[in-house]
This record gives sequence, structure tokens and C-alpha cells, in this order.
Amino acid sequence: MDEVIITKAIAESYMKDLLDSSELDVAIVGAGPSGMVAGYYLAKDKIKVAIFERKLSVGGGMWGGGMMFNRIVVQSEAKGILNELGISARQFEKGYYVADAIEAVSTICSRCISAGAKIFNLLSAEDVMIRENDRITGLVLNWSAVSLANLHVDPLAVRSKLVIDATGHDAEVCRIVSRKTGTGVVVCGEKSMWAEVGEKEIIDNTKQVCPGLLVTGMAANAVFGGPRMGAIFGGMLLSGKKVASLAADLLRKTKP
Amino acid sequence: MDEVIITKAIAESYMKDLLDSSELDVAIVGAGPSGMVAGYYLAKDKIKVAIFERKLSVGGGMWGGGMMFNRIVVQSEAKGILNELGISARQFEKGYYVADAIEAVSTICSRCISAGAKIFNLLSAEDVMIRENDRITGLVLNWSAVSLANLHVDPLAVRSKLVIDATGHDAEVCRIVSRKTGTGVVVCGEKSMWAEVGEKEIIDNTKQVCPGLLVTGMAANAVFGGPRMGAIFGGMLLSGKKVASLAADLLRKTKP
Amino acid sequence: MDEVIITKAIAESYMKDLLDSSELDVAIVGAGPSGMVAGYYLAKDKIKVAIFERKLSVGGGMWGGGMMFNRIVVQSEAKGILNELGISARQFEKGYYVADAIEAVSTICSRCISAGAKIFNLLSAEDVMIRENDRITGLVLNWSAVSLANLHVDPLAVRSKLVIDATGHDAEVCRIVSRKTGTGVVVCGEKSMWAEVGEKEIIDNTKQVCPGLLVTGMAANAVFGGPRMGAIFGGMLLSGKKVASLAADLLRKTKP
Amino acid sequence: MDEVIITKAIAESYMKDLLDSSELDVAIVGAGPSGMVAGYYLAKDKIKVAIFERKLSVGGGMWGGGMMFNRIVVQSEAKGILNELGISARQFEKGYYVADAIEAVSTICSRCISAGAKIFNLLSAEDVMIRENDRITGLVLNWSAVSLANLHVDPLAVRSKLVIDATGHDAEVCRIVSRKTGTGVVVCGEKSMWAEVGEKEIIDNTKQVCPGLLVTGMAANAVFGGPRMGAIFGGMLLSGKKVASLAADLLRKTKP
Amino acid sequence: MDEVIITKAIAESYMKDLLDSSELDVAIVGAGPSGMVAGYYLAKDKIKVAIFERKLSVGGGMWGGGMMFNRIVVQSEAKGILNELGISARQFEKGYYVADAIEAVSTICSRCISAGAKIFNLLSAEDVMIRENDRITGLVLNWSAVSLANLHVDPLAVRSKLVIDATGHDAEVCRIVSRKTGTGVVVCGEKSMWAEVGEKEIIDNTKQVCPGLLVTGMAANAVFGGPRMGAIFGGMLLSGKKVASLAADLLRKTKP
Amino acid sequence: MDEVIITKAIAESYMKDLLDSSELDVAIVGAGPSGMVAGYYLAKDKIKVAIFERKLSVGGGMWGGGMMFNRIVVQSEAKGILNELGISARQFEKGYYVADAIEAVSTICSRCISAGAKIFNLLSAEDVMIRENDRITGLVLNWSAVSLANLHVDPLAVRSKLVIDATGHDAEVCRIVSRKTGTGVVVCGEKSMWAEVGEKEIIDNTKQVCPGLLVTGMAANAVFGGPRMGAIFGGMLLSGKKVASLAADLLRKTKP
Amino acid sequence: MDEVIITKAIAESYMKDLLDSSELDVAIVGAGPSGMVAGYYLAKDKIKVAIFERKLSVGGGMWGGGMMFNRIVVQSEAKGILNELGISARQFEKGYYVADAIEAVSTICSRCISAGAKIFNLLSAEDVMIRENDRITGLVLNWSAVSLANLHVDPLAVRSKLVIDATGHDAEVCRIVSRKTGTGVVVCGEKSMWAEVGEKEIIDNTKQVCPGLLVTGMAANAVFGGPRMGAIFGGMLLSGKKVASLAADLLRKTKP
Amino acid sequence: MDEVIITKAIAESYMKDLLDSSELDVAIVGAGPSGMVAGYYLAKDKIKVAIFERKLSVGGGMWGGGMMFNRIVVQSEAKGILNELGISARQFEKGYYVADAIEAVSTICSRCISAGAKIFNLLSAEDVMIRENDRITGLVLNWSAVSLANLHVDPLAVRSKLVIDATGHDAEVCRIVSRKTGTGVVVCGEKSMWAEVGEKEIIDNTKQVCPGLLVTGMAANAVFGGPRMGAIFGGMLLSGKKVASLAADLLRKTKP
Repeated sequence: MDEVIITKAIAESYMKDLLDSSELDVAIVGAGPSGMVAGYYLAKDKIKVAIFERKLSVGGGMWGGGMMFNRIVVQSEAKGILNELGISARQFEKGYYVADAIEAVSTICSRCISAGAKIFNLLSAEDVMIRENDRITGLVLNWSAVSLANLHVDPLAVRSKLVIDATGHDAEVCRIVSRKTGTGVVVCGEKSMWAEVGEKEIIDNTKQVCPGLLVTGMAANAVFGGPRMGAIFGGMLLSGKKVASLAADLLRKTKP
Repeated sequence: MDEVIITKAIAESYMKDLLDSSELDVAIVGAGPSGMVAGYYLAKDKIKVAIFERKLSVGGGMWGGGMMFNRIVVQSEAKGILNELGISARQFEKGYYVADAIEAVSTICSRCISAGAKIFNLLSAEDVMIRENDRITGLVLNWSAVSLANLHVDPLAVRSKLVIDATGHDAEVCRIVSRKTGTGVVVCGEKSMWAEVGEKEIIDNTKQVCPGLLVTGMAANAVFGGPRMGAIFGGMLLSGKKVASLAADLLRKTKP
Repeated sequence: MDEVIITKAIAESYMKDLLDSSELDVAIVGAGPSGMVAGYYLAKDKIKVAIFERKLSVGGGMWGGGMMFNRIVVQSEAKGILNELGISARQFEKGYYVADAIEAVSTICSRCISAGAKIFNLLSAEDVMIRENDRITGLVLNWSAVSLANLHVDPLAVRSKLVIDATGHDAEVCRIVSRKTGTGVVVCGEKSMWAEVGEKEIIDNTKQVCPGLLVTGMAANAVFGGPRMGAIFGGMLLSGKKVASLAADLLRKTKP
Repeated sequence: MDEVIITKAIAESYMKDLLDSSELDVAIVGAGPSGMVAGYYLAKDKIKVAIFERKLSVGGGMWGGGMMFNRIVVQSEAKGILNELGISARQFEKGYYVADAIEAVSTICSRCISAGAKIFNLLSAEDVMIRENDRITGLVLNWSAVSLANLHVDPLAVRSKLVIDATGHDAEVCRIVSRKTGTGVVVCGEKSMWAEVGEKEIIDNTKQVCPGLLVTGMAANAVFGGPRMGAIFGGMLLSGKKVASLAADLLRKTKP
Repeated sequence: MDEVIITKAIAESYMKDLLDSSELDVAIVGAGPSGMVAGYYLAKDKIKVAIFERKLSVGGGMWGGGMMFNRIVVQSEAKGILNELGISARQFEKGYYVADAIEAVSTICSRCISAGAKIFNLLSAEDVMIRENDRITGLVLNWSAVSLANLHVDPLAVRSKLVIDATGHDAEVCRIVSRKTGTGVVVCGEKSMWAEVGEKEIIDNTKQVCPGLLVTGMAANAVFGGPRMGAIFGGMLLSGKKVASLAADLLRKTKP
Repeated sequence: MDEVIITKAIAESYMKDLLDSSELDVAIVGAGPSGMVAGYYLAKDKIKVAIFERKLSVGGGMWGGGMMFNRIVVQSEAKGILNELGISARQFEKGYYVADAIEAVSTICSRCISAGAKIFNLLSAEDVMIRENDRITGLVLNWSAVSLANLHVDPLAVRSKLVIDATGHDAEVCRIVSRKTGTGVVVCGEKSMWAEVGEKEIIDNTKQVCPGLLVTGMAANAVFGGPRMGAIFGGMLLSGKKVASLAADLLRKTKP
Repeated sequence: MDEVIITKAIAESYMKDLLDSSELDVAIVGAGPSGMVAGYYLAKDKIKVAIFERKLSVGGGMWGGGMMFNRIVVQSEAKGILNELGISARQFEKGYYVADAIEAVSTICSRCISAGAKIFNLLSAEDVMIRENDRITGLVLNWSAVSLANLHVDPLAVRSKLVIDATGHDAEVCRIVSRKTGTGVVVCGEKSMWAEVGEKEIIDNTKQVCPGLLVTGMAANAVFGGPRMGAIFGGMLLSGKKVASLAADLLRKTKP
Repeated sequence: MDEVIITKAIAESYMKDLLDSSELDVAIVGAGPSGMVAGYYLAKDKIKVAIFERKLSVGGGMWGGGMMFNRIVVQSEAKGILNELGISARQFEKGYYVADAIEAVSTICSRCISAGAKIFNLLSAEDVMIRENDRITGLVLNWSAVSLANLHVDPLAVRSKLVIDATGHDAEVCRIVSRKTGTGVVVCGEKSMWAEVGEKEIIDNTKQVCPGLLVTGMAANAVFGGPRMGAIFGGMLLSGKKVASLAADLLRKTKP
């Protein structure tokens, strides 16, 4: 076991993948449940997709279940996605399935990557790339550690036909686009809790917000002012699946 | 979708599992690669096992690969474990396999839970339970958030026939046992890097350190003063498998 | 004394009470003097009430008296409440009674719980639950330690016929409702000190601010722009008693 | 209601009590359960006693029960103290009583003060006063806010025939005495958890550690190296009662 | 030397002075050069005056001279004040006198107190007291350590015929009055540096800003938008002298 | 080697240069690449110029290249500046030159000083000096350590015929001028990334923003709302050269 | 009023004094009461003396009196020093004089400087200068702001025939000498409070601790293990006077 | 200008250099003056050398001169090195040359890289690689941002025939080697200031401390207990030159 070969094996194979991802079909920001479900369905559909995650680990707020009790609830409509991914769930009452939060997040992630999506953790989307007519054309990326460590270091950029904002409550990409471009995107902020309505609206709010930029998961409700839902994740998973389908359609339309 | 049913579904099913885990065969501290591999093999062997993880997410230092380049290296000896768990790996040079760090950690976790191990995140082992002859008989647990938030709140306790310290470089459980009991356990601290030797010694150092307490992964080299290895994980996986086998043997011997 | 039985005794009896409180008549946010006095009178009236307190201990700013001199002043109008609760007080000048701040807060708390109110400390109201016509129908709760520890964990929710904001100067629940709903609630902020006027207005300002939400104590003056009063607590106690009475009336009206 | 009269009422009545407490029979450091139970029994016995508490609120770690589940367990031997103080408790299993942690702490405090003990919160014991033969003769006090705010301000001192260290796990007074005097007091540190043994030893360890200084509660086990017990509080209450009795005996002996 | 007598000597004499200052002719907030010069002239004029200073030490930004070079410059117009107070100064160029910053601040302070003004350090003005027609009638005070230590403790209040804001660049009292009363006071903020103009305007801006409230020193330029001046202190001293004279006039007018 | 002579050698020669720089032709704020290139060309042109840099080291964000990969890209148009300064660069693709970021920044700095510009590090421009018609006439400086250490110390001032804001993304001087003067300067903020357009606009935006104040480098795009460019530095260098030329012209015009 | 003349006046006069102080008879570290009293008597005796103070303001812990009650106590033996300096004091009980803490510290400082001592604030003694036979020959100084701001900047040095450690409880200079030289100086640490004994020992402990280094004030008791005294300052003042006399004697002996 | 080409240009050229540096003749830790002078002479001698620097910028403590007065002193013996590198210096007194600190550090760096040395900033040496007989054979590296950001990420490793510790006062590499290997290296810590002796000893202390590890600059005096020198840098430069020569000799001896 030679340390220098280990160094080269790791650095070269990572850098090859990263540079290969500098030209993408779809760039997803945020490896929470919606983003990874979207990545899974896009990769299954043979679309070139990468997910950029700010944190060291993926999964966002799903690990902690509700109030650190690491269980999640999924309703009947989304049970099919759990089944497809191989996540076990037990019925609590009619229409309410309980799953282990850690099993759910790790299995979604495992399946997303084995389907062919790339996940790059520890990378933050500081900004977007923009072109004529305020079309979003890619991401401006930096190591998350750079800002955590209060360093002043310039970012690099990757090009992507479509960008998906899957950053959750903060809708970070949409906020950047709202502040730094002329697209007219506005982030309303999520409303108080109403699980029933929130779960419905999240599907409607999953859509393209401006040329080149789609939104999914809690970011969708944050952009359009839908209510929050708490530790029920069915709408999140369905939103991820829907945004993958929307993105695939858009890519097909733009193909020659 | 009723929020109160969601609340009950989550809290009740979590609390049932947590209280069910208050009497264990094996309690593992730390859901890094060694701890989760151990959990996987113990659960496969129908042994009642739970893993207690201090952080929100599992995986320890594996997510970041080497220097944030999220790839890891595994040598031939451990390739079989990757195969069994379903983690893909590409040969870089003869004997050096490169795997995606995120795929590796999420897949180990997913398989560990579906094999039947319980993982409780956000819980810290503050101390151990002890009985006659300084035998370790369980863990003293608290929400990690309690100490992160600087609150003064008492812990609770779970009983376990065996405890495995899988806390990595810090060997936290062994340090507590060294400071607060009369077992004579001493933590030497890991030595400078020598991958070849470190990978060998980690297997030898995987063993019982005092009645009721075993050690695995980097904690094993930290306790016995073995060298560190860096971003090569074969020894870690093999150590997790070995400690599971040792624990199973010990349990069999103590059965009537 | 078996540690595992202790663990079960504590976790089971707590969780039973917490889940029992997931459907309430009245949910009070904040266990300061007003909130606990309200809880006392509601419980005495056999109304199902729970108080959710963000901090480890109850009592808010009452412990420190004025400028860390742990005495408080109560005027004649509120002396009856002290008497009913069994808090001793000495007349300083005609109409001004001095009580020991620590005796006052601990006795109010002791009496509130023995009257039948539940107090859950270390829980923060992150948000409210809302239904048609912007009616407030419950609380979205999380461990306070979650945000203190900067963790990203989802909350759970409890339903309540009425919610009382007893969070003091910050009027936290009303601020959330103001920002995240369409109720039109506005928080004016308290004005500079004028004890005489403040003590009068606090009683007038104790009322329902929108369907399902009442306000008491300093939060009442903060919402409606009344002046602050300093370390005189008569108005606080009377406001707590009044809000209990208002809530009881509202509940009676909504009963079939 | 005149603000200046309120100011005078509070400042004058506090300062009178504080200066009156500058010459005490017994000075207790720490208003946790042991310290307040000791204060209750000493005051009942007409002994001049004051408790100095570093925090804003009293109660130490009792508020949070076990792992933020705010319940505590008390065994049969200490049920009598709960009864005397008027704290309700429900039997969980034979010999294990569960009480509401908030009711317990607030009621102990309320009863302690109404029995005649003074509690001064927000005051830290920075040091002790010492005389010939290394006899402890009082406390060196400062506002806790002074060190929290990183200010450099000198302390003041109070004289007391006896000092009781009721500061819990840290045994702060004993540590100061160990470091800054020639008394030979040594703080061993508490050992790992063993509830049965810990509950027994805490009573034995409740005693005088050097002329003028007694120790109670978890500080007793910390000084003499007894095991910790977790969220069972019977030994704590009994230790508080015992130290009160020891102190009363010592005072009687030293009287002319 | 008995420690308890020392304790009583300090606490009693301080508390007597503090309570004596609960009814004042003039309450000055901020013991910087302007505030202390005002205090000196008011005390010389037999007016009952006290200065409340947030920090442990007096003097504000004067100690550090310019850029930590502890010298200050005073122009001819203000040389007379230096002479009266007994502060030596050397001419650098015609019209520019250089003084030792530490000698200046300590001597102003020493003379201010020996003239009869009281200085209470470590006390913050959290708010003002207000009466009919938005007249400012006193200060709401708290230990600065309370907010530095993040404690939640109520303030006390003192009454004063006039209040002078001498808090420097921040104009803290005026900002509070602007935000929490209906007086219409607005704080413009100081402008960029122009020493010549700033030194002139500071005298003009030294005046009553609303009934009961005057402003002096840099707070005067901050309220009315005058330019800053840097390390030249003549205007500051003259402003302090002027506000003392204005206050004396106002007091004479309001006397029966 | 005598320590006192070393002390005198350092302090005297520094202070001589600093005071000599209290009257300048051009004062540049920020020693990033644009500021230092401007300083180089101004000094070459025999203009009296000094650069004031907030940090301990010069170079701003150039040291870290892109994403901590310490290389920078320069396009053909700016290759001539690299050649003049003696910085080596390798062609990556036609029109794209790669240079070592550390070599670039250290060589620019070395050449800037040897050309005759003074660089004063650890000094922050807190404000500007202003005169009739809102003309900027100098800088108000303080040790950066003063604000980093939270000290309250007054600044000193230097006069300069022209001031150049070379502070990068924050456009700090322009923001101060916008907030504290009547010049009407507005800082738009930089837009999302578009390297091609950004590189063009930065040259156009390099100009005088109000009498006495010019802007260069990323501050120019920040003031006028141009897009950001990332780790390509050609525009930055050309902007520095252009602002030097503009400043020289302005100085010539104002000469008698 | 020209800002550039102000800049020059301040910087030049400061730097002249600082460089003039690079060769001293006596360098005192710490401008607390002992250090300033020592400076006063040395300056009165025409000895070239400078005081280096780490903080922005002088006075150490004297400003806050006891427990923020800003009064101090002085006994009869030291009343003469108060009289000589012109500090008023009132007798509380026979032998106990109470003075205003702020008047005391500001007057000592004012008199110290007007007697001819230089005080340089914001300068920390990082280390000492040393020569043959471990003789202390000066101080290694740096701006305090450098370490507060976590900057890495080298210090400068001044030479002094004698150094006096007047740094209070920490005895900072003696600790440095203990750790970094071969002088054999040991710092015992101060003992618990005993005012009577502490006041006596502080005078005895005021002496030369190694060639070139003397100690005064609380640093004297800290070095030799004397007890602390609290807010009584007579011994401090007498110690300052004594160390001045000792230093003067030593200087006379070493003169040719 | 295409952002993706810029990304590739930067990442590919950096990674090529970094991986090329995974097998070195000499690895220097720390890009302060000694380390960069050593790098310059080694590169000039055609030896394959890289410098790893923890911070964003190079130069260590040299930028700030003495006490933030950015000048340094160099004595006659080292004037030749300044001349060779092209750094101007003015004689202050005979034998004392003053140079501009910023010119010095930037010019050394510029010349070091153009001579052929590689500098990798933002990389920390976490540990060393070790082989038989405790020979140091390389460095274990990680992004400095990883520990600054409190992330848990594994390092990578580079091999080097020799390692030079040029980390200054802390002697970080030697401390690691002292703690984590069996080499017997001990770090004594630097002594108090004596410029004359320190400048001499630093040359003597520049040597090999164990097989494979040399030490230079202040780290040399720190390891062997030599005195510190302050802001005189001649010894530092000469030490860097000497260690380069020693390393070249050692490499020649080990060549076949």
C-alpha cells in the first residue's frame, strides 16, 4: 500500500469527474430528498446530471425526522417511490406510513448514485452563470470550506442546460437570481404549517421559474408562498420526481 | 394529512424502538464505516444491535474522501466486502480500487439498517455503565444537542452485554473508561502515517480491551498506538467485520 | 435501583404526557409569570392546558428582580393573587408590596402544576398551525436545543383550540403570525417606561388578536404599543388571570 | 405607581437582606436540589442560612429530567421527603416513583424560602475566606455577570460559621479549597454510572471535608470518587437532609 | 482589617449614593469628555448631577488619542478649559495644542468628581422614562453586565428634571427616544470628516432636542448630521460646557 | 546587534514615510491586483502615490486562484502587462494564458514598490475627508487591528488630490461616500457571472465617480452593476492601468 | 483646523515620547493602582520612568470597587497617600476609610503623569530582554491589538535598568521570566482571602525577584503565595510606594 | 472568454503540478522568509522542491515589520542575500540596514517561484509519513480550510526525500514528530529576547534533527532553545540559505 498511489488515485479520479461535470445537462443544487430523487430519475433517464451539496453529508433535514425522533411519515400517494427505491415503511394509520429516517436518506442517496448521478459534496453555489435574455446557464461554485473559514478565494464555474434549485426552505439559488439578475424572480417565503395544503401545493409549485431554472421541494413552496408541512415527506419525493420529468421534457424540446 | 397523527406516528414509533434498545446484545458507539459494517454483520447474524451516533448524519470522515476529493481507495483484501454490500469500485492500479465516497457511505448505511441494525443519531455516549469487577455493562446517553447548546441536563442509560467503541481517532469510549474506571485501559494515541503497517495493525488491534468493551476501526489503532493510514479504507471495513465476529463469539460463550 | 427501569420510567411517562398534549384546549407559549398564572386559573377551571417554555427553567425575567436585586413590587390590586397562591409580601409604602422574586416565581410554578397544568420546558414554538380563514389551530414545536446547536431538524405539531402568546417583550408568536400568515396582526413594540399607564394598558391589551390567538403579559403591551413598567408585576399577574378568563369564555362559546 | 418608589423598594429591601447575610450560621453554595433541601431543613431548625446560586434560576440539572424528558425518579427511601414538601409522585414499578421535574424543583424552592432560608441568585463564590489552622470562615462573592461579561471587578466577602458545597458534579468550592489552601482537601472526580452504589455512597460521602466546610449532593460523590447515578434523585434529597443535620450538630457543639 | 466591615462599608455607601441619585436635577448618559465636562460645570454650579457610564472605565475614545498614538489636539478656543482643569498642553503649531490623552481624561474625571458630580460606571441606560406630552423625565437603568452576559433581568429607574445624551457617535439615548416615543426626534448620523466645519457645528448642535432631553459632544453632530472631526477635542469640551449652561438655564426657568 | 537601535530604525523610518504620505497626489485603498497595478503605473509616472491595505498581506483574492487551485487565467489583451512586470504564463488554449497565482501577486507587489509606490498594510479607510461641493479630499485611516480588537480609538487623516477605490467586490470607499456624503454616488452591486461581458464592462466602469474619487477593479463593476468574471484577471490588470492613466490626466489638468 | 496638521501633531509627539522611552531607568508593566503610585513616586524623584499598560484605560480592577459598587476601602496606614494625592475619603468605622473608586483611580493617574511619568496604553509586554547572568534588561513590547486581532506581527523592544511587574493577580512578567529564562523565578499563586494577613504580606513581598526585576501590588502576593485581600487598597498603595523606594535605591547603587 | 475553459485551465494545471509534487526531493513546510529563501537556493540548484503554506498568503510575520511599522532590519552579514534577490535597503546606522517589509517578502517570494520552486498555499501539514528506523519520508497534507471550517475530512500524502520545518516559533513539524514518533526529537521552546545571541545561534541550530527532517528559521531556535531576536531578519535569511546547502549535501550523499 503506497501512500502516493493512494493520493493519485483519489485526486485524479475526482478531478476527472469534476471536470467532466463542467458541461452538464442538469445541475442540481442541494442533495436533500427532493434533489436526490430528481437526480435518480434523471440519471435513470440517461440524462447527464450532477448534484452540488454545500454540506459534508447529503440528506438535509431528513436525518433528524421530527424533533430528533428519527422517523418520517409518507402518505399513500408517495409509497410507490419508497417501493421503487427499496425503502421499507410500516403503516401507522390508514394512509400514514412510517419509515426510518436514516434508512430513507441513505437508500435514496445510494440509489441515486448507482443510477448514474454524480454528487459533489462540500461545494457551494455562490452564484449563477447568466447569458442573453437573463437565461441561467450554469453555476458558480466554490468549496464551502472557503466561506466557512472566512477565506477570500475566487470561485470556478460549470455550464448546465438546466439548473434545479433543491436547496430547501432558503431557496438559495432563487434568492441569488432574484437579487443579482433581471429575471424578475421573487421569493415569497413559506407560510405557516398546514400539512394537507402544503403537500398539494408543493407539486403545483414545482416548475420552471425563469429560463433555465427550475425549483423543487421546500424551495418550491418558499418561492411561491406555500405552507410548510413538517416531517411528512411524500410531497418532497413526488416533487423531485416531477421536476425530473419537467427537466427531461425541456431538454427534449431544446434538442435539435 | 393530519399534523397530530404525523406527530404521534413519529414520536411513538421512535420511542418504541429507543426503549426496545434499552436492553441490547451489542451497543456500538459511532456510525462510521467500521461501526456500520460491524452493525451489518451482527444484524445479519440475528444479534440485537444498535448504533449510537453523536452527529446528525452517519459516515464520519468517509464523506470527504481525501482532501475533499470525495473518492476512497480500498485494497484487494477488502474488495469482497464492497461486493457483498453492492458498492461499485474501479481498479486504479493493480491492488488499488477507487470507490465513490458518498456511494460507499450511503450504501453501507442503507444495508446496515435493512439488515436489522438500529441507528440512533444525535445521541452521545457521555459515560458507561459499570458493575462488579469493572465490567462495562452499558452506555450513559444524552442528546448531543444538550452539550452543543451548553445545557445542564441529566442523561439516561441503556444496558448492553457488549459495547463496541467505533468512535475513530478519538477513541472516546476508551478514553472515558480510562479516566473514570479502574479497568486499566490506556489510550496510546495513533502514530504518524504508514499506510502499509497501519492497515495490518488495525486488524490485530481490533479486540476486547476490557470485560464488556471491544474496539474497532481507527479507535483500535488509537488505543494501541498503531500508525494512521489516510484515505484507504480496507482495514476499516475488515476491522468492522472482525469485531462483529469477535462479539458474536463472546455472546455465544456467555449464553447459558 | 436499575438504570434501565429509571430510563423507562422517565421516557414513558414524559412521552405519554407529551402525546396527550398533542390535542389541547389551550396552548400557552412562555412560562413567565403571566403564562403560569394563566395556566393556573385555566387548570383550576378544569380546562386542558399546557405551557411550552423555550428555556430550561421557567419564570422569564422575574428571577432577577430589578437590576439583579431579587425583589419585585406588586401593587394593591394584585395582592389578592399573591394571597391566593401563598406568596408572602411586605408593604414598603402604602400600596407598594415587596416580595422575594425567587419565592414568587417558584411558588407560582409549583401551584400552576399542582393545579393540573402541564409545563414542557426546552420546547420552542417555531411556528403556528393554520387553517381556513387564517384561524390559528396549534403550534409547531421543536426542541430549543436544536436551534441552539445549529442543527437542521424538522419540528412536530400539536393542535389547540386556543393559543396564548405569553412570550414577553418579544411577542414571538404574534411576530410569527404577523410575518407568515394573512391575519393582519401587527406588532407595534412596547414604548418607553411609564409604570402607571403601562400597568393599566396591559389589562386592556390582554385580548384575542386574531381567531384562535390571545396575548397576555408584556407581549400584550408589545403588540399594541403600550409602555413598559419595569420590576412591578401586578399588571402581569392580573393580565394572566384575565386571559384565562377570556379563554374560558371563548371555549364555552365554541362548545356545541 | 411611581417608578422611583419601586426602585427604592427593591434596592433597599434587597440590600438589607444581603448585608444581614454577611454574618451567617451556614452559607450554602449552589441552589440545586441538595442545597435547597439542606436550606429547608436548616431554616426549619431556626438556623440562619443563605444559599448563593451562580445562575439566574435555581434547580441545577433537575429541570431537564433525563435527556430533556422532564420527569425524575425517586426511590422509596426518599418518598418521605417528597411527601413532606408536598410534591406528588406516581409509582412506576415497585420502589420507583416518578415525579414532574418542574413541579419538584419549584416546590422545593418555594418551601425552602417560605421556611426562612434566603436565596441569592446571580452570585458566584469565587473563593473562600480562611483563618488560622486553615479553617474555612466564609465566602468571597461576586456577581456572576462580572465573569460572564469578562469584567475585572473585585469581590466582596461574607462570614459564615459553616460552608456547604452543594455545587454538584464540579464540587467548585472543594476544588478552590484544594488549590488555594493548605487543608489537604482532594477532589477525586465522580466515577462511571452505577445507580445502586452511587445512591448509597452519596449518603456516606455527605460529611465535613475540612474544618468549616461540608459537602452534599453530587459534589459529595465527586470529592470522594463515588459513581454517578443519573436522573434518580432520592440520594440527592437524603444527602441534603443529612448535611443539614450534620451542620446543626456542629453548630451546637461550637456554641458556648 | 475585617472583611465583613469592608463589605458593609462599600455596599452601604454605594447604595446610599445610588438611591440618593434616584431623584436628580440632571442625569448625563456617557462619561466621555463632553459628559464629564458638563458634569464638572453643573456640579460647580451646585446642581445635583450624576453621570451613568456603560463601561467599566470612563473617557470613551479619548484614551487612545489618534490611531493608538495617545495624544490629542485642542485648538486655542478651548485652551481655557484645559487651563481651568489643570491639563498641560504644548503648542505644536500656532493654534494647535497637543495634550497627553491619558492625562487629559484622568484629570477631567478627577476634577468632575471632586467638583461634586457622581459617576456611576457599569450602568447602561436601556430606556427613558416618559410622561404626558412625551416629556423625558428620567432613565431606565440596568447593570451593563446584564446584557453583556446575555441575562434576562429587569431594569430600575431614576427620575431627573433633565437628561443629557453624551453617548458619542451612537447617540444612544436619542435613538431610543426616536424609536420608542412620539417625540419626533430623528438621528441623522454623522457625516464624513471635515474638522473645521465639524468643530463649529458641534457647538450649534448642542441643544435641547425634545422636552427634557439635551444632547452634547459627538452625539450632537450625530443627531443633526454634522461632520466628524477626528482626534481634535476642542469642540467636545466646549460643547460640554455649553450644555451645562443650557441645562442650568432650563432648570432656573422651571423653578417656581 | 542592539535591540534599541533596531526599534529606532524601524519606528523612525516607518513614521517618516507615513507622515510623508499625509499629503499625496493619489491615495489608493486596497492592495489587490488592480490597486497595485495602478500604483505601479502611477509611481512609474513619478506621481506621489500610496496604497492603504486593510489586511496584513496584499493581493486580495488573487492568492487562492480559483477554488484554492492557485492558478489564474489572463487573456491575450492583458498579456502585455504580465510581460512588462515579468510574470511568466503558459498558453492553455488559444487566448487563455495560465499563470501561477502566487508568482503573479508577489511579483506585482514587488514591482509596484520598487517603482516607488508606498504600501501601508494593516490600515483601514474608515471614512473620507470632504470639502466644499462634496469633493473627496483624503482618507480617514485607522489601524485595522483597532476594529478587529473591538477597541474604541479615533482615526487620523491624510490628504490626497485623488482617491482610488480599489477595494474589490465591496466597493467600500464608494459605499461610505454613498452613505455619508451628498455626492449622489450609488453602489449597484455586481451582477451574476458572465466573464466575456464582465471583462469588457470593467474597463468602461473604471472612471471618476464623483469629484476626487475614482474606482477600479471589481469595485468598478460593483458600483455600476457589471457582471462578475471569476478567476480571470485580465480586466483587473487593464483596469488598474487605465485608472492610473485617468488619474494622471486629472492631476495634470488641476496643476497650475 | 487642518486635519493633516492634527495628524502630524499627534503622531510626531507620540513617537518622540515613545522612542525617548526606549532607554529607561524604570519600566513598569501595568497601570493599576500599585504601578501608578510607583510611577508617581519615581517621577517625583526625577527618575526616568514609563508605564506600559495592556488595556485602553488604566486602573485595572479599581474602577469597579467591590462587586460593581464603585467604592473602595483604605485603612489608616495608607490614608497619608490618599492625602498626598488629593483623594477624599470618609471614615466608615474607626480605621476604615471609604473613597470613591473612580475618583481614586483617575486622580492617581492624573497625578502620576503630571509628576512626569509616561503612560503608554494599548501596549503589551510580550516578553523580556535578557543578558548575561539572566539579568532582565528591558521589555519586548507589542500593540495589544495585535494579539486581540489574532495578527502575526513581530514586537519591538525597549531597554530599562529595572523592570517592575505591576500586572496584578496574573504576575504576567514574572510568569514569562519563570517560563523563558534560567532565573529560577517561581510564581506560587495567591491564596484564599484573609485581608489582615494579605495586607501585611503584600508589603514584605514587594521586592526584587531576580536581577533587574521587582514586583509590586497583587503580583507580589501572587509570586510569593500571600493571601488575597479584596476591595481594600491600602496595601496596594503602600506596596507601590515601597517598590519606588527600592528601585531608587538600586539605581543609586548601580550608578558610577 | 468561456468560463468552462477558465475552469479547466485552472484546475488541470494546478492538479498537474500538485500531483507532480507528490514525489519530491525536498518538501518545505512554511513559506516564511527562511522557507522561501531555502526554496530559492534549492531551486537554483535544480533540486525538486515544493513549499506547503498553511495560510492564504506567504511571508509569515514579516509583513508587519515591528509593531505594525512595516520595516525590517537586516545586518551586514546578510546584506548580500538582499542584494542577490534585488531588495533595496538603506543603512540606518553602521551595520543596520532598513528594508521595506512588504517589498522584502514579495520580492523573496517572486524570486523563489521564478527560480523554480513550487509554492502550494492553503495546505497544512497535519502529520508526517514515516518508515523503518523512524525516518521521515514525507508529509500528510490537508486543505487548511478543512480544520478552519471544523470539517472532518481525511488528508492525502506526498513523499519527499527530505522535509524542512520552516514553520517559525511553533516548530509545528518538529512538535508533531516529537509527539507521534519514536525519533526522540524534543522542542525546547525559544527563550527571551537577546538579538545578538539569537542571530548567532539560529545559524548553529539550523541542522538535521532526525533522519529526513531539517529545521530552519525561528523553528531552529524554538527546537534548541535559542533566544528570540525580534524584527531583525538577517539570521533568518542566512538560516534559509544554510539549510538549502545542508539539504543539497544530504541529497548528494544519498544518490546512488
